[in-house]
Amino acid sequence: MHRAAALEQILHNEIPISKAMGVRVSGYDGTCLVLAAPLTPNTNHKNTAFGGSLYSIAVLCGWGLLHLKLVEAKLHRHIVIQEANIRHLHPVEQSLHAECRIDDAAFQRFLRTLNKHGRARLSLEVVIKNDDLVAVEFTGRYVVHR
Amino acid sequence: MHRAAALEQILHNEIPISKAMGVRVSGYDGTCLVLAAPLTPNTNHKNTAFGGSLYSIAVLCGWGLLHLKLVEAKLHRHIVIQEANIRHLHPVEQSLHAECRIDDAAFQRFLRTLNKHGRARLSLEVVIKNDDLVAVEFTGRYVVHR
Repeated sequence: MHRAAALEQILHNEIPISKAMGVRVSGYDGTCLVLAAPLTPNTNHKNTAFGGSLYSIAVLCGWGLLHLKLVEAKLHRHIVIQEANIRHLHPVEQSLHAECRIDDAAFQRFLRTLNKHGRARLSLEVVIKNDDLVAVEFTGRYVVHR
Repeated sequence: MHRAAALEQILHNEIPISKAMGVRVSGYDGTCLVLAAPLTPNTNHKNTAFGGSLYSIAVLCGWGLLHLKLVEAKLHRHIVIQEANIRHLHPVEQSLHAECRIDDAAFQRFLRTLNKHGRARLSLEVVIKNDDLVAVEFTGRYVVHR
């Protein structure tokens, strides 16, 4: 878990809006990263979660998971978001919890491409739930290069 | 321009992250809304604009333009983002300027649907430039209802 705690420091030190949002690393088990943030700093005019905050925690969740997996593979690379799509199915009326899970086979293919070409892409899906209902579906295409 | 100034107050009072980002209304001519924000509170680990901030200013730009057009039409309705896509073509290395332009014919069609069914959708495109180059392309589908 100490790499996950280090990730929280990286987010707060280098991406100030993540600190204003109150983003913290809530869980990491080697495959799945969960980021959380309180609702209050992230509300909109309807007292539900602001769409920009939902996008931000989702894009950071994918970025953070890829960062942790690359650190574990002893690869220090640039990770850039290239394109993303976000769908809002329901409003989020509680604290934000974004969850991203990496598929090990897809990550191994990604690593082979990265080692061969010095550059590779990976699509990651992030979900944000409200109670047990999926409220937000995010898909981000990340590019990793030297 | 005073409706545009009122929009800035709405954003800061009701969406606290927009205040943390330093979002302000930079221009509005009845067809095109420009929102701006300084780079410093919106940076990432590479000292370029954080992807979450770029998304946030873009989604607010579309929302704000639709809000202003509905106020002008004396319609007070809920505006919700349903789905959005964002493409990053280049990094943004300067203050953020998001620009959204509404097509009058499309807006009139949208108003007819809204009046007839009490609910209508509109897709809006927002661009963010770095110098004269389009750096970010955002498309958001907004739903308006009673």
